[in-house]
Amino acid sequence: MAKYVRFKDAAGTVCFGRVEGEEVQLLDGCIFAGTLRETGKTVRLASINTYLTPVPIPNVLAIGANYVDHCRECDAEPPTNPLVFIKTTNALAAHGDAIQLPRLYPNAVDYEAELAVIIGKTASYVSEEDAMDYVLGFSCANDVSARDVQLKIDSQWARGKSFDTFAPVGPFLVTGITNPEELHVKMFLNGKLMQDQPVSDMIFSIRRIISHLSNGITLMPGTVILTGTPSGVGMAQEPPRYLRPGDVTEVVIDEIGTLRNTVKA
Amino acid sequence: MAKYVRFKDAAGTVCFGRVEGEEVQLLDGCIFAGTLRETGKTVRLASINTYLTPVPIPNVLAIGANYVDHCRECDAEPPTNPLVFIKTTNALAAHGDAIQLPRLYPNAVDYEAELAVIIGKTASYVSEEDAMDYVLGFSCANDVSARDVQLKIDSQWARGKSFDTFAPVGPFLVTGITNPEELHVKMFLNGKLMQDQPVSDMIFSIRRIISHLSNGITLMPGTVILTGTPSGVGMAQEPPRYLRPGDVTEVVIDEIGTLRNTVKA
Repeated sequence: MAKYVRFKDAAGTVCFGRVEGEEVQLLDGCIFAGTLRETGKTVRLASINTYLTPVPIPNVLAIGANYVDHCRECDAEPPTNPLVFIKTTNALAAHGDAIQLPRLYPNAVDYEAELAVIIGKTASYVSEEDAMDYVLGFSCANDVSARDVQLKIDSQWARGKSFDTFAPVGPFLVTGITNPEELHVKMFLNGKLMQDQPVSDMIFSIRRIISHLSNGITLMPGTVILTGTPSGVGMAQEPPRYLRPGDVTEVVIDEIGTLRNTVKA
Repeated sequence: MAKYVRFKDAAGTVCFGRVEGEEVQLLDGCIFAGTLRETGKTVRLASINTYLTPVPIPNVLAIGANYVDHCRECDAEPPTNPLVFIKTTNALAAHGDAIQLPRLYPNAVDYEAELAVIIGKTASYVSEEDAMDYVLGFSCANDVSARDVQLKIDSQWARGKSFDTFAPVGPFLVTGITNPEELHVKMFLNGKLMQDQPVSDMIFSIRRIISHLSNGITLMPGTVILTGTPSGVGMAQEPPRYLRPGDVTEVVIDEIGTLRNTVKA
């Protein structure tokens, strides 16, 4: 296992490094090309002020309704094949970035803690058996969703899932996880545990999702796949608990880290 | 009005130029930054073998059901606000590229001729009045759609609209069009006119679409907006006329050019 971070230093330079305890070994080269080299320089992890998404991300694909308990809380039938949707890249945000409530639709913005799969090499027509060969690693993600736009105002989910900052991903890219099914996906809202489920509860496995998507959609290096959210979203609380300015969302996957974002009007 | 083209030369170098009759004036610099400069070099337009999309495109946003006649032929109610969906960037293709039928879903692939709007500067919360200030120019596009996946197999349109090569855009970027409503969008299938409607028939105007999308979704330079297709799609023919290997699709907008693609198994 290795843990990577991408960030901007005080001078605004984009840096990439391997996290080792409290230190970050700065690296040159490209993780996709397999040309990473140590520079010999280190920084303290705690000194990073501006996180970036762990890699540059060309496309964000996502799977909806992938946990039976979440389908149940949404009064939705579990789907018979993966429910695919797309988020635009303007929605990407990093660890520490604000989640901005859209000016026209600030009242029904919801969190969704998810495991993010990061593709490492071009994947086209990949079998379930070979699928994991195309995975670079994993991260945490929050599939932020304006429920009014997603489910009432628009007929497609696209816009309600793609507002600026609606796709935080981070803080780290973790490689070498051999049993991702054993990870647990948790959401803490202002420190209170709202979601907590093992990845093994997913209806469609990571292998199945990658194979399904790559059947006609070439997945380019850096593509992120959001794998669906467990039960416990804000919409399903009684009464619904939507995000408000000042709220702190934390997506926690113990082996990866904590993706923390603060909600802003 | 000016007409621009992006292409690869015989050495594989990406070139950008202004089309002047049968010649292309090669340009240095960046069209988004306003730093274009003439290099003094020219090539013959007819010598271009490998077209690229006229600019690099970070996101493809699209509007469905934006012509009343097309709604009618699909037995759909005209929407009351713009119907937004997204295509992933793996779907992008250029003038001359093949449209590939997806291996698993080759039997219901349809054409949709559309006017493509290309955003020139970052647009966020833009009014209808100011919307045209953010438009760099226009191009032709084909919103290729696997109808079985779009309408039957999947619940969201995302995947059926995002297969590789399902978003041809080109051949040219045309700037300085002051009355885009007067453009006519045509589709020729193997030389036969299938679609032909003026942009003024659109339910939601270009200004309205840009303003609507930019309400929360920051449109980055190069973002393409597909503005909807007129009536005459293959699905609405009796019997339906879906794309077959060897078919030639041509999206024609007289002031812009002809976007030609050949269908491949």
